[in-house]
Amino acid sequence: MESPVIEIPVKASQPYTVTIGSGLLGECGKYIAKVHKPCKIAVVSDTNVAPLYLEKVEKSLHESGFETVSFVFPAGEQSKNLHTFADLLEFMAESRLTRTDLAVALGGGVTGDMTGFAAASFLRGIPYVQIPTSLLADVDSSVGGKTAVDLKAGKNLAGAFKQPLAVLIDIDTLQTLTDEFFADGSAECIKYGVLGSERILDIYENGDPHASVQDIIAESVQIKADYVENDEFDTGLRRYLNLGHTLGHAIERSSKFGLTHGHAVAAGTVLICRAGEKMGITEPGTADRLAKINERNDLPVSTEFSAAVLTDSALNDKKRKGDTIALIIPEKIGKCMTKTVPVTELEGIIKLALGEE
Amino acid sequence: MESPVIEIPVKASQPYTVTIGSGLLGECGKYIAKVHKPCKIAVVSDTNVAPLYLEKVEKSLHESGFETVSFVFPAGEQSKNLHTFADLLEFMAESRLTRTDLAVALGGGVTGDMTGFAAASFLRGIPYVQIPTSLLADVDSSVGGKTAVDLKAGKNLAGAFKQPLAVLIDIDTLQTLTDEFFADGSAECIKYGVLGSERILDIYENGDPHASVQDIIAESVQIKADYVENDEFDTGLRRYLNLGHTLGHAIERSSKFGLTHGHAVAAGTVLICRAGEKMGITEPGTADRLAKINERNDLPVSTEFSAAVLTDSALNDKKRKGDTIALIIPEKIGKCMTKTVPVTELEGIIKLALGEE
Repeated sequence: MESPVIEIPVKASQPYTVTIGSGLLGECGKYIAKVHKPCKIAVVSDTNVAPLYLEKVEKSLHESGFETVSFVFPAGEQSKNLHTFADLLEFMAESRLTRTDLAVALGGGVTGDMTGFAAASFLRGIPYVQIPTSLLADVDSSVGGKTAVDLKAGKNLAGAFKQPLAVLIDIDTLQTLTDEFFADGSAECIKYGVLGSERILDIYENGDPHASVQDIIAESVQIKADYVENDEFDTGLRRYLNLGHTLGHAIERSSKFGLTHGHAVAAGTVLICRAGEKMGITEPGTADRLAKINERNDLPVSTEFSAAVLTDSALNDKKRKGDTIALIIPEKIGKCMTKTVPVTELEGIIKLALGEE
Repeated sequence: MESPVIEIPVKASQPYTVTIGSGLLGECGKYIAKVHKPCKIAVVSDTNVAPLYLEKVEKSLHESGFETVSFVFPAGEQSKNLHTFADLLEFMAESRLTRTDLAVALGGGVTGDMTGFAAASFLRGIPYVQIPTSLLADVDSSVGGKTAVDLKAGKNLAGAFKQPLAVLIDIDTLQTLTDEFFADGSAECIKYGVLGSERILDIYENGDPHASVQDIIAESVQIKADYVENDEFDTGLRRYLNLGHTLGHAIERSSKFGLTHGHAVAAGTVLICRAGEKMGITEPGTADRLAKINERNDLPVSTEFSAAVLTDSALNDKKRKGDTIALIIPEKIGKCMTKTVPVTELEGIIKLALGEE
């Protein structure tokens, strides 16, 4: 039996609804017609996703009275740059989109990020709808309003805060994901579990994440929405969403991005719990529990890099500034704290995490 | 005797002050220190303005405890594109600017527009200060929060709404403007006069605009600020600021941009008044009065292009949409109205304006 759709309202500066269900791609026109009158829609997708879903999406949009044009760019993070951004803007202009027309992002995080930034910039802002097609995009980039492209100097350095008009998550698209991509999104979901959902952890610990993916996504989106509603422009509370990221980013960079973001953050979360337990902050047993969950779901629990290498990598983050670093550390499942430490103490903490003495 | 500075508060979503006076460049550090703590500042300027003022500005910033880096790009509208925008973003990243650092736009409209868009986009937004150095930038791009770059398909098609942290207008910089550039800015000031300032019209009609330029700028900024405060995101009232622009843009495009924007809008404003008088909307004598003011200030009062050519040009505007066109027509000095007419009637109205029968 098919589950009914779940709708989660997000109360950002421009409120919108995240709809999660089966078969949404083929009905996207109806959903978009609820929030926007007939217009021209630029559907943006990449060379992996377009062959799978573009025709179905355009057909549904046509049936609901929308006119469409489509822009397909080469799949991959290397496309998330100012060149593709410029091409997309020129495409929107050549297609004569106006401020009352729409952009639709059909794809993963790269597609969502770039389409969102272009929608924020074209004519100083046209509305856009997100149709994410990867688990990571479902729970990460679809809520929060952060859009960006990479610069030569680093990832996500140029972008805009831009809320979508609606987000449609069709869980059927997850059936075409490889195991590695599913695990990558799962790492993010498990992070939300640690932040505030025993239900998510229970599914990954004892259940069948594929079968329960609609629930996992709904819980994750709700938690992220709660944080974002309280801190839309990322000036405070929202930093908790960076749980596992200090060490995760360091692992990711040390691996020269050979390890994906999700896998690296999964290891980073276990490691910060290990350090937290030794520092008397984290409830004992938390790290072991998370390690077991990661192992059951094909995610790493530690790293081969030394504390010295990871420290160097963490401190060379171009976004970092000043003589201290703020670490997000779980006290227990559902409750994190921020510990600001001098950069000189970071290596010692990473040694605790790795069990180096 | 030197006039005291004039301060005009702008109540946008992020409130700020426009300061207008003599000698402000050499004291910009003190003014910026009032609104921002010590930080790194990226000063952006072009190859015309940097040799004149960059050293003075950086010196003042250093004296107030700011660190500076500078980015100088080739002067001219042809630089206002996504390539320069990308170079500027990469420069900001290489200079390791953070969200608590600042950008300063030192120059005319192109510099202000591009710096504002880059400041809006870098790390999804860093603060910026405008130091305009042309009369047009003083009264036009320094208030309103509209920033943009040109696309291949047209002018100002990509950008952001971004309010500055402060605007510093040093009227001494106007002494280096050519007569043509001064007239270009004057056209915009006269437009503000028609919208709501007998004082501005009186100066251009009977006084010495160079000697009274501080008053002209202050009145113009105040009028624009009033409009922008009531319609920050340009969805209604602010359209009155487009007085003279339908015909002005048509003249500008028909001249293949051989005529500057200001000169074209100056002619457009007189012409729409001529049409308005014949349509019984505009107080008789208004067009003649404006024509005399334009002539006294080296601005055109009409155009050599035919109604057919101008109509074609107006209707080919890529931003235009639908079967009607909204014309801004003065009823009298200080009061305009919007008349929405079918596009099929436009040529007839332009014929009235030109006296073609």
